[in-house]
Amino acid sequence: MAEHNLSHIDLNEYPHINKGLDGIVAFSTTKSNINGQTGELIYSGYHIDTLAENATFEEVCFLLWYDRLPNQTELDELHKKLQANRELPEPVLTYIKTTNPKAEPMAVVRSAVSMLADFVDDDASDEYNAIIMTAQIPTIIAAFDRARNGKEVVAPLKDGSTAFNFLYMLNDEKPGQAAERVMDLCLVLHAEHGMNASTFTCRSICATESDIFSAVSGAIGALKGPLHGGANTAVMNTLLILKEQGENADPVAFTKAKLDRKEKIMGFGHRVYKTFDPRAYHLRKMSKELSEETGHVYLYEWSEAMVKTMKEEKNIDPNVDFFSATVYYSIGIQPDLYTCIFAMSRISGWTAHFFEQKANNRLIRPRALYIGEKNLPWTPVEDR
Amino acid sequence: MAEHNLSHIDLNEYPHINKGLDGIVAFSTTKSNINGQTGELIYSGYHIDTLAENATFEEVCFLLWYDRLPNQTELDELHKKLQANRELPEPVLTYIKTTNPKAEPMAVVRSAVSMLADFVDDDASDEYNAIIMTAQIPTIIAAFDRARNGKEVVAPLKDGSTAFNFLYMLNDEKPGQAAERVMDLCLVLHAEHGMNASTFTCRSICATESDIFSAVSGAIGALKGPLHGGANTAVMNTLLILKEQGENADPVAFTKAKLDRKEKIMGFGHRVYKTFDPRAYHLRKMSKELSEETGHVYLYEWSEAMVKTMKEEKNIDPNVDFFSATVYYSIGIQPDLYTCIFAMSRISGWTAHFFEQKANNRLIRPRALYIGEKNLPWTPVEDR
Repeated sequence: MAEHNLSHIDLNEYPHINKGLDGIVAFSTTKSNINGQTGELIYSGYHIDTLAENATFEEVCFLLWYDRLPNQTELDELHKKLQANRELPEPVLTYIKTTNPKAEPMAVVRSAVSMLADFVDDDASDEYNAIIMTAQIPTIIAAFDRARNGKEVVAPLKDGSTAFNFLYMLNDEKPGQAAERVMDLCLVLHAEHGMNASTFTCRSICATESDIFSAVSGAIGALKGPLHGGANTAVMNTLLILKEQGENADPVAFTKAKLDRKEKIMGFGHRVYKTFDPRAYHLRKMSKELSEETGHVYLYEWSEAMVKTMKEEKNIDPNVDFFSATVYYSIGIQPDLYTCIFAMSRISGWTAHFFEQKANNRLIRPRALYIGEKNLPWTPVEDR
Repeated sequence: MAEHNLSHIDLNEYPHINKGLDGIVAFSTTKSNINGQTGELIYSGYHIDTLAENATFEEVCFLLWYDRLPNQTELDELHKKLQANRELPEPVLTYIKTTNPKAEPMAVVRSAVSMLADFVDDDASDEYNAIIMTAQIPTIIAAFDRARNGKEVVAPLKDGSTAFNFLYMLNDEKPGQAAERVMDLCLVLHAEHGMNASTFTCRSICATESDIFSAVSGAIGALKGPLHGGANTAVMNTLLILKEQGENADPVAFTKAKLDRKEKIMGFGHRVYKTFDPRAYHLRKMSKELSEETGHVYLYEWSEAMVKTMKEEKNIDPNVDFFSATVYYSIGIQPDLYTCIFAMSRISGWTAHFFEQKANNRLIRPRALYIGEKNLPWTPVEDR
């Protein structure tokens, strides 16, 4: 907005301004560890490869909340609580059905999650509220996608996994085992990831002793940004532009031309990983298998060509968003819902960090250096 | 939640953990400067005393957005834009009227502001959206307060100041000049205040390149916390407990007893100010005058007794929340709306910081130290 003349500031007297808080350690955590050099990711003790091969999303929720895997009784109980709490309060459903159908899906998820706060008791525990949000975010996403497309909203099932029920509500058709497993694996891979911008936002809001709905709706707002979760939608939109070029589509030339124009190519590079994102391995494998099954092999091949070009030209590897885009596309999900699915998974990590922050809290309040004028005299409006 | 055995961590190898980011300079800003030692506050060049004596809330909005005071034409235009945009979109009003009347007012403001995003064009400017929120937050607060009390919602006026119109919508009665001036001064005093937790949240969300509604709804969630804006409601609740003691009410003994029990006394002390909060001077003066006018002199006297006791016992001064509580009480506003009024004012500072962050952005992503286990082997659920 306004332009500033900084000539009155002695630049030698500036303190160091750490604009991104890079490298500053603000928390200790048991929720996840990222080794950016080796490309390793751990959730509460377990390597992401171990979890990708063995765990369900519900097991990961329990793991992140309690720092251990549930036994059979505990897992059954968690499933039951999630299944019993999937239905939305009537005013939330009314909002979803009557708001502007062109609204951004992430904005609708943010508003609907915020509204859920009105329908829990003041003395409900944070754990209960975490379950409410984990159970209802899938319902919110599916209901809005159907409502905006003029389709009848499908009520949630009272059984089945989070992944199964979400695909059922979205398509009004029970998914097969393969689709459920793909969806579930995507939820496992996106559940938690260190001190990213949305998790940090969640903890900053928690630190004022505000409530868990405030913290999560703030986190959803942060995830919505293209520099954070919004990237996977952008990746798919890039691939769809390529698709429009039909037979002339050339992913290598396309990527190089974008680089020449100094345009950002979404889905590559990461503030923390200096190597291949470990989640991208699993998504890449899924993307290959699914593209073959669903006749989108060209999308997978283009993706690989882009990965190769980016490595050669810029030495940058793909991140989690790059292959998740083609995976979601192959199972028939609209590109503008991808970030919502990210939120549907990350709710587990956000709420886990909320519990952890609350247990050992301090208000988060960095400083800003003032570079404006001081003590200007008042000028009456008629003299301005 | 879970208890952790940290014996496997070598504490000597810990990096420094800055839990509250105290003293870390993360931004440069022209929006405000706080000198905690001398108790000075500046908004975009002007001392808070100068503004308190001369400026209206609308002038402060313009000042914070553009770093200069508006001329008459610009000020008239801003008034017109605010007046023209006070009405809520129908689905937002429906939500406010039909949600749980026992919902927390700040939660309703958070949800309703979040919903406003659905009704602006994708290409609306941030400045336009800032005006939409500044114009509509008062309507949201007044509509919910009336709806929850079974009263008819009062449509906003198409003229008058933000302060005048808010009191009109709240009470269905046009306020007198004195009440309008008090309300306006409260809005001026709460408009901006450095890198507080909600402003920091706003900038963190903006830094992902997310939208201004995401940033502001996140900020509202942060402001809601009792360690931030929620304190003024808590101050009034404390005074009302004292009031219940009737003739036996003794603010000095009451304060000392709370201190003996090591209870936090809300409205005192500040992370930044080590002396009297400059805003508290203006609010104290207003509190005195209003309590005399409205027959609540005892509340003012109790407040002063508490201030004196806190100074003697703990050498802690009151902050902005302490006297704003009695001011709002004297003009007949329900205690649980105080933090909403804070938001109705602070929208100006939040949006100003959003503009500033966006103009010179970097993703905000501090680190966390992982103190959990690593690479645990998988145990099948039946063996746990």
